[in-house]
Amino acid sequence: MASTPPAASSPRTRLLREPQRAVYDRDQVYRILDEAFLCHVGFTVDGQPFVIPTSFGRADDLLYIHGSAASRMLRHLDQGIPVCVEVTILDGLVMARSIFNHSMNYRSVVLLGTATMVTDPGEKLEALRLLSEHIMPGRWDDVRSPNEKEMKATSVFRLPITEFSAKVSSGPPEDNEEDYSFPCWAGVVPIHEIAAAPTTDPRTPVVTDPPNYATHYKRGKRAEQ
Amino acid sequence: MASTPPAASSPRTRLLREPQRAVYDRDQVYRILDEAFLCHVGFTVDGQPFVIPTSFGRADDLLYIHGSAASRMLRHLDQGIPVCVEVTILDGLVMARSIFNHSMNYRSVVLLGTATMVTDPGEKLEALRLLSEHIMPGRWDDVRSPNEKEMKATSVFRLPITEFSAKVSSGPPEDNEEDYSFPCWAGVVPIHEIAAAPTTDPRTPVVTDPPNYATHYKRGKRAEQ
Repeated sequence: MASTPPAASSPRTRLLREPQRAVYDRDQVYRILDEAFLCHVGFTVDGQPFVIPTSFGRADDLLYIHGSAASRMLRHLDQGIPVCVEVTILDGLVMARSIFNHSMNYRSVVLLGTATMVTDPGEKLEALRLLSEHIMPGRWDDVRSPNEKEMKATSVFRLPITEFSAKVSSGPPEDNEEDYSFPCWAGVVPIHEIAAAPTTDPRTPVVTDPPNYATHYKRGKRAEQ
Repeated sequence: MASTPPAASSPRTRLLREPQRAVYDRDQVYRILDEAFLCHVGFTVDGQPFVIPTSFGRADDLLYIHGSAASRMLRHLDQGIPVCVEVTILDGLVMARSIFNHSMNYRSVVLLGTATMVTDPGEKLEALRLLSEHIMPGRWDDVRSPNEKEMKATSVFRLPITEFSAKVSSGPPEDNEEDYSFPCWAGVVPIHEIAAAPTTDPRTPVVTDPPNYATHYKRGKRAEQ
């Protein structure tokens, strides 16, 4: 994991619209990535862009995605084509006085680059562990590890977090001065992604309590890895 | 709003992996679209794919997105380039006995096509209303409508829902037969996106109670429009 400059942007990732919401700080970008469940991977085949949702993991300045070795997306990525990884966390619905100033509070990251297949068995296993820990910290140690056949059936790709930007929108609505007297309520409806009580698989042979990491599942404001 | 065939797929949107999870039914695709807050728009510029999150609205078989007339994304879409719109709703974290069979329950839609700028003023205003109603039903009637300057500053694009597929994954984990005796808990942690109590903008001149649509905000299983 080579060290990289503390922040990065390029003309391709620099925000033109609403530049006051732009974030090029690496730690803040990591916090957004670490809190999001899913990323959205964009790639182009025969001129047609595709966007596929998938889970991911992070180790320092590397982002890992995985999938079936037979996956159409991963077979395309293996050709070294440019990709875009986008992550968005929705935080609130912003209700202004004018319809025009309605918006959302959110944190998003856009990351450009080229993904490379991970061939080193040690890095591949560690990447799978990071992918698992990203979704459910603590789970990896409790379950059956991947066997050789499963490792072969899985491809892992690595994308360096080098060319990126983030956009953060927060706070109350911003209305035109003359609209503040408009006679309607204004404010924010906060949106949270929450975990409900776990449902146990009916095929569990003995009654087993769900582990703490499942009953007390929570994301966000996680300590840096 | 011309009528279209009840379902559509193409070699480009047909699911190769896990075809049992494929959905090409138009009504089910509409329900997923109508429940999701955001879509992720993929487009390609100089060979580089970009993926941008944005809100959207739907009228029958048309999907509408909007943004600033100065938006980089919309200026590119205006050149008639191919786009991909992806929508994903995460429903649960699926904890199996083997790490290999861990997965997520989700509903996702991938839609391919070309977007066209809406120039008819009536369709444009109606599209903006649909975009607003998609996020907060009832809000449009309570707030100041867009004026001429705001309409000019806003671009709206229309994408026909013609070439699409959806993928739905639900239910308990599916483990290999020999793994069901593995001594760990297995099941699903349901994930929900919920609205918390609204926070009123401090700049509201008179104390106003938040409207019912904000205090009782709920998505999902919405009636068809």
